[in-house]
This record gives sequence, structure tokens and C-alpha cells, in this order.
Amino acid sequence: MEAAAIQDLYPDDLAHCYGCGRLNPHGLHVRSTWDGEETLATLTPQPYHTAIPGYVYGGLIASLVDCHGTGSAALAAYRAAGREPGTDPPLRFVTASLKVDYLRPTPMGVPLEARGRIVEVKPRKVVVEVRVLAKGEVCARGSVVAVLMPKSMLPSTRNPAPQA
Amino acid sequence: MEAAAIQDLYPDDLAHCYGCGRLNPHGLHVRSTWDGEETLATLTPQPYHTAIPGYVYGGLIASLVDCHGTGSAALAAYRAAGREPGTDPPLRFVTASLKVDYLRPTPMGVPLEARGRIVEVKPRKVVVEVRVLAKGEVCARGSVVAVLMPKSMLPSTRNPAPQA
Repeated sequence: MEAAAIQDLYPDDLAHCYGCGRLNPHGLHVRSTWDGEETLATLTPQPYHTAIPGYVYGGLIASLVDCHGTGSAALAAYRAAGREPGTDPPLRFVTASLKVDYLRPTPMGVPLEARGRIVEVKPRKVVVEVRVLAKGEVCARGSVVAVLMPKSMLPSTRNPAPQA
Repeated sequence: MEAAAIQDLYPDDLAHCYGCGRLNPHGLHVRSTWDGEETLATLTPQPYHTAIPGYVYGGLIASLVDCHGTGSAALAAYRAAGREPGTDPPLRFVTASLKVDYLRPTPMGVPLEARGRIVEVKPRKVVVEVRVLAKGEVCARGSVVAVLMPKSMLPSTRNPAPQA
């Protein structure tokens, strides 16, 4: 049985992210699970997600690192709190800082594996290191500083709405 | 008259990038020009480029920083060489390293301005710092280390093709 990804468990009003929201029909739908002591997300780029023809667009790799980073942060925070993933109150993280080093061109046409390692867990801040692999070879290394989403960002508590 | 963006001048076989390629019909079409001593690219996110509802997806901001960084690198390299942008041989840069600090949530529904400052220019390496502004307020700060694209990545010189 496939494990639920943490993004499957985000509350509906926090599940519209272009990178990982299950309710965003245009999005990338990054899904992060535990895989032993690491976290794992797999994404197959679309043919148009190209950089130089034949290679994957670096911004897509950054997006994968970003959403797998915040997803991994949530997984780690629930585990550190001894709580079941997805239980209330939600532990939803956003990105404070993102870094990606592109080690080699990433080939198109194969699934990309993002593997996260939790390097720091505090109640409001989690740091995750992410390797992105294609065909078993590390193509990019990333680091995400994720912070617990401030309540002021919650759609239900904002006033006025920022779109207005 | 609107100035040509550097991405308008990339050779056809290097103009398919999802972030900035004019020949990618699915892409973001980031376009970078000089604006005095800075470089400038403007992008209005689509409604589905959301993070938490009301705010722009961080991966889109990373993509804007990425492509505006490599575009700015090309502009700076042509200027440093005393050459007209787009002249042969092409000076096409790719990203070695990308960093983005998200300073505040970036509001949806307004154009984003990416402003680049060239901090280092060598023949094969350019470093660009990028501020991303919405409504005149800096929402993110990025840094791109761009390197001249190795000939081995050129579609016309690769053997075998990496898709094969």
C-alpha cells in the first residue's frame, strides 16, 4: 500500500500550492513521504520542462527541492512532536531560504528522485538537505530552511485579503 | 521603443528554456534588459502560481531569479567583452548555484520586478544579485552563480543525444 504523502494531509485551504497542492489542477503535485530515515519525492518532468534541450529546467528542480523541503519539514515536525501526520493543529511550513547547487546537467525523460535529510528540527524551524537524483546519479544538492507558517498567512484569518 | 531582451537574441537551439525561452510555448518567458546599471525583468504570475492562497509560489520566484540571473550574466558578459548582445559566438550562461531568501509573502495579482546587480564578471563566471519586488517592496533576495554553458551541452555538438 502506498503511504499517504504529507501533502495529501494538508488542510484544504493550504492545499493550493502550485508545487505540491493536491487541489491545484495546474500544479506539479510534489508528494513527500518517509523512506526510512530519509524523505522521498519522485517527479517526472514534462517534456516542456526543459532548459537546454535534453536537460531539465533548473527552476523545476528548485521547485521540487522547495516543496519537498517544506513537506519534509512537516513530516519531521509531526514526528518530533510525537503526533500523527495531518492531525490538528496543522504543522504547515513555508520556505524562508532555498539554495540549490546544480552539480551536472539533469537528463530529461526519467523520474527525478528528491531525497531529504533532516538536519535540524525546532518547533518553528526545520532545516532539510535535499539531493536530486536522475538514474541514480546526484544532479543537484539543495538546502531548505523551512519555518512554521505564521497565522497571519492563514486564508481564514487574514484581513484584508491580500489580493484586494 | 522597447529594448530587445537578451533572451530574444539567444540562438534558436538555446531558446527552449521553460523559464525564458521564446520558443517554449508552455514557458514563463522571462525577458531581461538593462535598466541603467541594473538589469530588469518583469513577470506577472498566473492565478494558479499560488503558494498559500493570495501569495506567489516560491518556486516561481526562484525560477524568475534563475532565468533573470543567467540572462543578466549574458548581458554583463557581452558588455564586458565590448560586444553587441546576441552576436556570435553566443554567450549563453547556465546556473551553477541559486539561492533565494524569502523576506515576506509575495502578493498575487501584481507584476513582479526582478532587479539584478552584477557583482562579478569573469569570462566563464558571472555572479548576479537579484531583488524581487512587488508594489515597490522587496519580497525576496536572490543570488545566482552563472557559468558559461559548456560546449558539451550544445544540442548540435552532443553525441549521443541525452534523450536517447
